[in-house]
Amino acid sequence: MFDPVEKLKEFIRQPSVSADSKFKDGMRGAQEFVSGLLRSMGFDVEVVKTDLHPIILAQRPGPASWPHVIIYGHYDVQPADPLNLWESPAFEPTIRGNRMYGRGAADNKGPLLTHITAVGQLLEENPNLPLRITFMIEGEEEMGSPSFGPFIRAYRERLKSADFVFLSDTGIPNEQQMVITAGLRGLVALEVEATGPNSDLHSGLHGGVLLNPIQALAELCASLHTPDGRVNIPGFYDDVLDVEPWEREELRKLGAKEEDYRKFLGIDAFHVPPGITPFEAVRFLPTLEFNGFGGGYQGEGSKTVIPSRAFVKITCRLVANQVPDKIRALVISAIEARAPKGVRLKIVPGHSGEPYVVVPPDRTNTPKDQSPVLARAFRATDAAVTEIWGRAPLYLREGGSVPIIGEIKRVLGLDSVMMGLFLPQDNLHAPNESFNLEVMKKGIATSKRILAALAQP
Amino acid sequence: MFDPVEKLKEFIRQPSVSADSKFKDGMRGAQEFVSGLLRSMGFDVEVVKTDLHPIILAQRPGPASWPHVIIYGHYDVQPADPLNLWESPAFEPTIRGNRMYGRGAADNKGPLLTHITAVGQLLEENPNLPLRITFMIEGEEEMGSPSFGPFIRAYRERLKSADFVFLSDTGIPNEQQMVITAGLRGLVALEVEATGPNSDLHSGLHGGVLLNPIQALAELCASLHTPDGRVNIPGFYDDVLDVEPWEREELRKLGAKEEDYRKFLGIDAFHVPPGITPFEAVRFLPTLEFNGFGGGYQGEGSKTVIPSRAFVKITCRLVANQVPDKIRALVISAIEARAPKGVRLKIVPGHSGEPYVVVPPDRTNTPKDQSPVLARAFRATDAAVTEIWGRAPLYLREGGSVPIIGEIKRVLGLDSVMMGLFLPQDNLHAPNESFNLEVMKKGIATSKRILAALAQP
Repeated sequence: MFDPVEKLKEFIRQPSVSADSKFKDGMRGAQEFVSGLLRSMGFDVEVVKTDLHPIILAQRPGPASWPHVIIYGHYDVQPADPLNLWESPAFEPTIRGNRMYGRGAADNKGPLLTHITAVGQLLEENPNLPLRITFMIEGEEEMGSPSFGPFIRAYRERLKSADFVFLSDTGIPNEQQMVITAGLRGLVALEVEATGPNSDLHSGLHGGVLLNPIQALAELCASLHTPDGRVNIPGFYDDVLDVEPWEREELRKLGAKEEDYRKFLGIDAFHVPPGITPFEAVRFLPTLEFNGFGGGYQGEGSKTVIPSRAFVKITCRLVANQVPDKIRALVISAIEARAPKGVRLKIVPGHSGEPYVVVPPDRTNTPKDQSPVLARAFRATDAAVTEIWGRAPLYLREGGSVPIIGEIKRVLGLDSVMMGLFLPQDNLHAPNESFNLEVMKKGIATSKRILAALAQP
Repeated sequence: MFDPVEKLKEFIRQPSVSADSKFKDGMRGAQEFVSGLLRSMGFDVEVVKTDLHPIILAQRPGPASWPHVIIYGHYDVQPADPLNLWESPAFEPTIRGNRMYGRGAADNKGPLLTHITAVGQLLEENPNLPLRITFMIEGEEEMGSPSFGPFIRAYRERLKSADFVFLSDTGIPNEQQMVITAGLRGLVALEVEATGPNSDLHSGLHGGVLLNPIQALAELCASLHTPDGRVNIPGFYDDVLDVEPWEREELRKLGAKEEDYRKFLGIDAFHVPPGITPFEAVRFLPTLEFNGFGGGYQGEGSKTVIPSRAFVKITCRLVANQVPDKIRALVISAIEARAPKGVRLKIVPGHSGEPYVVVPPDRTNTPKDQSPVLARAFRATDAAVTEIWGRAPLYLREGGSVPIIGEIKRVLGLDSVMMGLFLPQDNLHAPNESFNLEVMKKGIATSKRILAALAQP
């Protein structure tokens, strides 16, 4: 059996930056490294071509009576710039203390190898393990997974026979506490451009006769929230579900302190609707956020201009049960209804992503039709984590979005068990990214125990 | 006597771009050209050193019983770029049709030479003309006149003995209609910066717990106007004077068409307070304008960020009787009072300029203490323009700001007679600037007639 630490070094040495065509060789190297490793474990490996970077589909088939788990991961990494901030070279794996440093160590090479190693050890110990396993490993995650949706639609029939998806591409608060991500927010993006006069105007010669596009957009933006911190669009909250007591209780167990969070953000005060904590707001409520606003003079000092145009970039985060297309339509109609006279508005819809939630078994809001295998996976996770980590996992929704998880649910009907392995100090997407090798060791044991339990009904 | 057209060519050949140190020789050449011309006319010429470009102070002294007029102008010009858009070289004067082309032909070399020529002819015809004349010609107008305020304060005692200032650095709507600019708006600039979190945040991980600085500033900006197009700051209009019927009547005589103006601006609708025309709004009402707004992601597509900071650049245009420092204080207190919790505001006051208004004699609101010489100047202007241009001049306020005119009033107590000589097609500050030689000819005759009338009580 291979040594996962040595394999992680090999994997990191392949500079697989998907967004930069200069790293074509590194992308191929990383793909071949993963494909080869899975082949050596006896998997049927198919390298599925896409418009850009192939997806690795590796299967361990078996009779339909065996449970079937899909393990997701990605072999591509973020760019490593700025390189001069790295203490050791980004693509030269280096161990310092109990950490392996290198681009992609945590996101996602270490966690992916955690599951590959678990499967490898399990199959070595029990070559006849009654479990179907499919690895589905993409190379475009850091680019927004453009080929992933088309892929799962093309392979729908083969993939939807699975019982659930197992992955590690989320975080935990510390080395002691496992968190299973039980929900992700969805996303709807749009941009609004307001155009007033034909060209920029002198604010002395013409100021006072026309609506300044900056003013028009500022007034429009100001209309989109209520003073108490809610989104001021009719129907925006209609599909938001009540939060269950067990979810609030999980959050309470997390024990995060508002004052610490406030200091971490560096703000004077939180801005949340009455009766909601910031930790609840970020997980359980949708948002409408201004990601960029621009118009007129942007340089030093002043320039007496009335700009011809101004723009605002908006994203809404959505929570479970909200539908991106519906929310986009609500936002667009509100903006159109409030469009100020005297400027022309252009609304450009952007990308979107489904929100996602999964409820572990035995909670008040667990769907009655939850797959028995998924329920067993959650129970096995509880048991494995409690034994290996010394305390039960927490099931928490997160504020971020991983659109592929909602897409998998929508296209394949499959839920995901997201086992967190990133620590806050792993520096994802930043210089000196690293992965904690103790977490990796516990992760391998946990994954192995969960998969083994699934195979024994 | 010199030929003004030949002299204008000589003047234009000196590339006197004040803002660009590469044109040091051109600046000196232009200064020496003007100084020499005035010396040849018998003036005592003093070249007053400043931190950058000297001011020419040329005097024709006389007994205190003689009226005393200061003629203002500037010998510096705007940069000529982009040079490739000029049909003939920018600093090679070229006559096409009845126009002299070249950088500075209109702004301000032609109009300045108009008055110099008028004075030269007048003194040649009547060497004993009982009129004190002071030329005050600066070289930094196109840079915002930084040395002009210190200069008039340093020479206050000598200058304040004048009766009024006579200049041509404003426009007329067409070759037939003389306009005397009777008012200019003042200016107050400030910048507001809102800072929220320590650094840009991921809008998924943290969206919904804090006030986005873009949202904070948008809401603040939206509070600064009423829906009917007025500035929503207590006391903002307190010192604005009622517009007199005679002023509305002058505007009516101008005969500008709203529909033409709307098309020129390229807007769907004007945005003015009820009962006010756009032509009135731009002249008689103060404004609060957003000249720039920036925050968050400015590039293509979307980026899911909550920015750490956002800024807005504001200028207010002020009308007669409003005091810049008072308006600045009102705006700052309104912003401070409305400062949203959860962001830190930094308000940076910028530059300011006094508004200005002068009322010709015999109007209902002419100040009772108006200098008799100024009143004679206006009456002489009426007579001269009516005779030479075939119709009486219009006395109109303008929306723009020429801060030195308010500064002259405040420091020296002197009003200005601003005789317009620019036509809309003169291309000021743009390629292919030119000056209409027929307007110059009429201007010389008009200036001469006015000055002659002043000398004959």
